[in-house]
Amino acid sequence: MNIALDMMGGDHAPLEAVKGIVLFLAEAGNDIILTLIGDEAKVTDLLLIHGIPMDNIIVVHASEQIEMHEHPTRALRQKPQSSIAIGFQLLAGGQTDAFISAGNTGAMLVGALFSIKAIEGVSRPTIGAYIPRENGTLGLLVDAGINADCKPENLNQFATLGSLYAEHILGYQNPKIGLINMGEEEGKGNLLVQAAYPLLKENKHINFVGNIEGRDILLDKADVMVCEGFTGNVVLKMAESLYDLVQRRGIADEHMERFNFEIYGGIPVLGVAKPVIIGHGISHALAFKNMIKIAEKMIEKDFMEKMKEVFTAQSIS
Amino acid sequence: MNIALDMMGGDHAPLEAVKGIVLFLAEAGNDIILTLIGDEAKVTDLLLIHGIPMDNIIVVHASEQIEMHEHPTRALRQKPQSSIAIGFQLLAGGQTDAFISAGNTGAMLVGALFSIKAIEGVSRPTIGAYIPRENGTLGLLVDAGINADCKPENLNQFATLGSLYAEHILGYQNPKIGLINMGEEEGKGNLLVQAAYPLLKENKHINFVGNIEGRDILLDKADVMVCEGFTGNVVLKMAESLYDLVQRRGIADEHMERFNFEIYGGIPVLGVAKPVIIGHGISHALAFKNMIKIAEKMIEKDFMEKMKEVFTAQSIS
Repeated sequence: MNIALDMMGGDHAPLEAVKGIVLFLAEAGNDIILTLIGDEAKVTDLLLIHGIPMDNIIVVHASEQIEMHEHPTRALRQKPQSSIAIGFQLLAGGQTDAFISAGNTGAMLVGALFSIKAIEGVSRPTIGAYIPRENGTLGLLVDAGINADCKPENLNQFATLGSLYAEHILGYQNPKIGLINMGEEEGKGNLLVQAAYPLLKENKHINFVGNIEGRDILLDKADVMVCEGFTGNVVLKMAESLYDLVQRRGIADEHMERFNFEIYGGIPVLGVAKPVIIGHGISHALAFKNMIKIAEKMIEKDFMEKMKEVFTAQSIS
Repeated sequence: MNIALDMMGGDHAPLEAVKGIVLFLAEAGNDIILTLIGDEAKVTDLLLIHGIPMDNIIVVHASEQIEMHEHPTRALRQKPQSSIAIGFQLLAGGQTDAFISAGNTGAMLVGALFSIKAIEGVSRPTIGAYIPRENGTLGLLVDAGINADCKPENLNQFATLGSLYAEHILGYQNPKIGLINMGEEEGKGNLLVQAAYPLLKENKHINFVGNIEGRDILLDKADVMVCEGFTGNVVLKMAESLYDLVQRRGIADEHMERFNFEIYGGIPVLGVAKPVIIGHGISHALAFKNMIKIAEKMIEKDFMEKMKEVFTAQSIS
């Protein structure tokens, strides 16, 4: 198993990425090879300083770097020697089994969609976000903001992809799938969710529990909460702002601390053919460790095959 | 000035409505007549018990009552002697100047749209919701859930209506109008907000400050936050759920207490030709008092004329 990590991505790279590797290696088995892509001199120095054994480490030099606010497509084209571009070359070529970055989100998405491509039958790959719940577990909000305008079929596919992730990676048995709506009853909502509801209801790959409302998002009414990316993005950023709010108010509460989204690492692009994990720009050591662990789990559980089986066995688009 | 109040609407009616009247009369001038619509015997008894002077009170008997979960259109047709149906008859006929109810929201909307009708030039009346902000003031979210599918022109009209309300009723000078979006830059978002942005930018009746994101909703970046009713409803219900969350967590915080939406009373239907105010079903005394005060202010400030001037002077639809 060879997991590649962009060492230059994120506000605190490469230092926090290295610290994350330290945390990961302290727990990991010895069958995992980490391919670290970035400025070779800087990365090697940091590995040395942090006493990381080089046995299962491969450093791949990247002479360029895509900055956080560069235009994704343009940057990928103009910087073929950037850590993100190299990461996708290695993943597409089969030299690595997963690619992780906390760098430019747009460039990561473009790379995932165009270098790696969607699984056959998936018309729109998606990205989810974790929503902390009072019972200590995480809910999954999907789509978290890459598909602003959707068709009913897209929502239905997000539901399937989210359900597979919740089952195989988050470990929920028969995860509950809810459709975010403005009322509980079938028939409520805008035209999109009215048309999506019957599709989710008939989708044999999910355990559809019906509509959920804004008030249910922070509860555990559904494990996977499905919406188009516009609403998803607004909901996610509002949830993220709760942490700032309680910090400013000086509120100390164990559950509210979990709205610090930095701790969750990243989340994979769902529906593409290989594991691509995108982290928050602000990722610290724990986030990097968690992202490597998610990649490991996706490979271990053969998650890509699980998605392919569902989407090729039955056309649910 | 004659303000009519549905005494049978809301979970705690008529008792809390009567208590709200007590609170209101303790502060009010003596030029306001209150028309109280409901079960005459019950209402009169309660007025007596609470020592309310009958000088400026008119009780209008309603032999029927629309329950909270009845189908709005059907209920209004089948119960012409209900307090809501009578309320709209009196308002449409000019016997009263405003109508307030914490009863069946759907029936109140149907009454507002069909008995009272939209102001000329307003293609879709709307309803807003207050969002408490850390600086102690209230932001206005509009549309809060009655227009699930919107055209760009609708969002632009919501912006104008919300701006007028923020200026004349909430008292903000030159209120800042923000478009809820999934990014800050112009050009971001789904097709709807991409098309709405230039309309708001060119709208001479508002002080447009650009896009705002989910993380800005609980801040004071914009006084009026514009979106279609689907997103608005999800955002509002998520904000409302924060109060339950902090209560369950045992968090005592002055600002978080203000997420108890019950205290804000109701909000008028914006864009209809006469003041119609819809309250939360759970309204208590303070909410009823606040609703009467909003109606009073709308009449005092000639708010209906302000809306008509803008929408007839220039066609901004």
